[in-house]
Amino acid sequence: MKYLLFTIVSIVDLISLGSAISQRTFQEIQEEIASYGDIAKAIINLAVYGKAQNRSYERLALLVDTIGPRLSGSKNLEKAIQIMYQNLQEDGLENVHLEPVKIPHWERGEESAVMLEPRTHKMAILGLGSSIGTPPEGITAEVLVVTSFDELHRRAPQARGKIVVYNQPYVNYSSTVLYRVQGASEAARVGAVASLIRSVASSSIYSPHTGLQEYQDGVPKIPTACITVEDAEMMSRMASRGSRIVIQLKMGAKNYPDADSFNTVAELVGSKYPEQVVLVSGHLDSWDVGQGAMDDGGGAFISWETLSLIKDLGLRPKRTLRLVLWTAEEQGGVGAFQYYQLHKANISNYSLVMESDLGTFFPYGLQFTGSDKARAIMKEVMCLLQPINVTQVLQYGEGTDISYWIQAGVPGASLLDDLYKYFSFHHSHGDTMTVMDPKQMNVAAAVWAVVSFVVADMEEMLPRS
Amino acid sequence: MKYLLFTIVSIVDLISLGSAISQRTFQEIQEEIASYGDIAKAIINLAVYGKAQNRSYERLALLVDTIGPRLSGSKNLEKAIQIMYQNLQEDGLENVHLEPVKIPHWERGEESAVMLEPRTHKMAILGLGSSIGTPPEGITAEVLVVTSFDELHRRAPQARGKIVVYNQPYVNYSSTVLYRVQGASEAARVGAVASLIRSVASSSIYSPHTGLQEYQDGVPKIPTACITVEDAEMMSRMASRGSRIVIQLKMGAKNYPDADSFNTVAELVGSKYPEQVVLVSGHLDSWDVGQGAMDDGGGAFISWETLSLIKDLGLRPKRTLRLVLWTAEEQGGVGAFQYYQLHKANISNYSLVMESDLGTFFPYGLQFTGSDKARAIMKEVMCLLQPINVTQVLQYGEGTDISYWIQAGVPGASLLDDLYKYFSFHHSHGDTMTVMDPKQMNVAAAVWAVVSFVVADMEEMLPRS
Repeated sequence: MKYLLFTIVSIVDLISLGSAISQRTFQEIQEEIASYGDIAKAIINLAVYGKAQNRSYERLALLVDTIGPRLSGSKNLEKAIQIMYQNLQEDGLENVHLEPVKIPHWERGEESAVMLEPRTHKMAILGLGSSIGTPPEGITAEVLVVTSFDELHRRAPQARGKIVVYNQPYVNYSSTVLYRVQGASEAARVGAVASLIRSVASSSIYSPHTGLQEYQDGVPKIPTACITVEDAEMMSRMASRGSRIVIQLKMGAKNYPDADSFNTVAELVGSKYPEQVVLVSGHLDSWDVGQGAMDDGGGAFISWETLSLIKDLGLRPKRTLRLVLWTAEEQGGVGAFQYYQLHKANISNYSLVMESDLGTFFPYGLQFTGSDKARAIMKEVMCLLQPINVTQVLQYGEGTDISYWIQAGVPGASLLDDLYKYFSFHHSHGDTMTVMDPKQMNVAAAVWAVVSFVVADMEEMLPRS
Repeated sequence: MKYLLFTIVSIVDLISLGSAISQRTFQEIQEEIASYGDIAKAIINLAVYGKAQNRSYERLALLVDTIGPRLSGSKNLEKAIQIMYQNLQEDGLENVHLEPVKIPHWERGEESAVMLEPRTHKMAILGLGSSIGTPPEGITAEVLVVTSFDELHRRAPQARGKIVVYNQPYVNYSSTVLYRVQGASEAARVGAVASLIRSVASSSIYSPHTGLQEYQDGVPKIPTACITVEDAEMMSRMASRGSRIVIQLKMGAKNYPDADSFNTVAELVGSKYPEQVVLVSGHLDSWDVGQGAMDDGGGAFISWETLSLIKDLGLRPKRTLRLVLWTAEEQGGVGAFQYYQLHKANISNYSLVMESDLGTFFPYGLQFTGSDKARAIMKEVMCLLQPINVTQVLQYGEGTDISYWIQAGVPGASLLDDLYKYFSFHHSHGDTMTVMDPKQMNVAAAVWAVVSFVVADMEEMLPRS
């Protein structure tokens, strides 16, 4: 639906392009953007070669080594928010404040899965976010292995009373993740007692990858966890040989009442149009495994770094550059939705919303959603990044937290980098500082800072459809 | 020492090359080898494109899915040996028999490591083979992080009463593995109470990689385990910030009296020189994690496949082609050493010893140790593999199990392939069938079969130094 919507918008843009253009010619805009060449070089020099190099990496390492993972509803997340509040104040940023929101509180508790037949095998699992637990004695049942929802539906009569194991191939994240999100309810519809989903991952060293799942209304809730690619494939082979597979699944997962949390905000207030906003962001919460260094520590910290770099250079854009560190993104953009509800009355003043939530490795380019005119402007802005060779403007600005604004017509941008690497570590115990590279973070921060500063400082806001 | 020895031998070979050549000219030998072109093509066709394709993969998957990992001294290993004995008989091979040996019996038991300071963090560990356990209440101690033995020695006074954590960088397996093998005794020498070693691995998704460690005589034995690259790096960062790190380590590891086991042997008896031998091999034992599919299920099963392919084509070489599936390689080539002791009187009849124990992915080529004359012959033999583009003859035939023969002067060969991939999964929970590729195994088996058949069938044995 999202992509279809964007296509329609783009066609409309194309038709109305002539009339939508402002008083200024595009050449005047090009010249304005080109005039930021020295500022862009100064930002790049400071971030990549100067005294700020490796700062976002070092700051991030300190936070995530100190706190660890930051699950929605956990004390760790609230500690991290308080530390970041202090960090942003100590950094000399403006309007540093916390905006209260309510967020989900789920805990996994103790969990285990043991194959009892055809042989004893202790399996690595991670319960999926929002899943219910099992009874204390666990659920012991025979397994039905399927490779798709289609196969599940074809074999529906065999699913009753079973644990459904999904061994769906990894195609790409956005399509394959449907098994994680909907697998439990689809299995419950045909009478399954639990479901185990092959981790949605581009590679594996016997690594389970957790994530959110969603129960559907009117369908019984059954416990659900992810298993490794390795175990999903093994059970598929066993089943194809006719072996009976029996698993004992124990999950202590519990859902608690919503918890108090905060979106963390800081600004560089605009010199000329302070009410107008360019928003840069990442989310501070993570899953409860690994360190949440990549997802989304990196995105949060290059966004902070953006304001630090601009402040360090003594720059102040005409519009307000606002940093938001979202809470409870992993639970479905929960903090960001409440932010949108609170601030949407001011939507006409949002020039650009940016979120980095797909890794801060060496960027391939900027993903962007907006009118053709706005895209043409972004292409000019990205030319300023020729010194570090990151100039591409790609389709579809992404980010759960900024999606509310993008869907309402605000131009949106995100960073794209090595998704194979990203989805190797995503939501797993392997999401740690070991994945992060300070030099790559320097470059990502430079891109983030140049784009957000120039768009915040140009004479006009980005044009909408 | 090993490499130095080979260099000296090579120089001697070079000097004596003229006199060492047999009655036949090299051109005659070249012509003889070239005459195997059709046989080589038949083997390749059967293995890679014909009805045998994917057979070694399917056979291996069935064994390792059924049995799981096969640790020295375990019931799993003995079950696997009995199944293989039956498999080889049912395959119609000759002289199928088990040769009894004594092997180490170590069990890891329950184990855990929890960081207590500076924050609570449950760490993934794998005790190292032959390590003693801790007392039931565990060992709780402060950590000293070092990145090298040099640093340990420089900081020796700080090690007393501590748990030494090694965060050595991964350079390559043969040099970095010294930390796993000697780390405990080196730490114990300076008064440490336990040691934790960064896994010796080329990549990690929070994956511990176990392996053998060796206590040194006269040094106190302390418990030792591997930790993940991620945790080693994190503790290094914490220590560099001045944080005090405390870990509680619990290991239920136990060493038992040596167990009974077997090397598994099968043959195609030579038609003309049955007392002469070309030996193809891999090891059947594994570590107690994953499935031991790659290390060394793949090597064992392409070696079996070699005899199957030759038998299926109705071929019988002049010399005996002997398959050996070693036991207790992971404990230091224990089964192979006893085989060597038993059979070394017949060493003059061993033309070539081969072991595949570095993966059965798409091979880069054949590693080979032997005289220059023998190497020249192997290069001609490898030309027969031009149809699948695997023609390189590289330095240094490798394999713990064949090293006894190679050091005594018998030519030795092994397969070389993608070592980055190999050491990503090696000795970890990730060593499963998911790593294996049937098409790559087909090619590896074809190389193995062509080389071993031709060398076993040529009129003369490979010349030694």
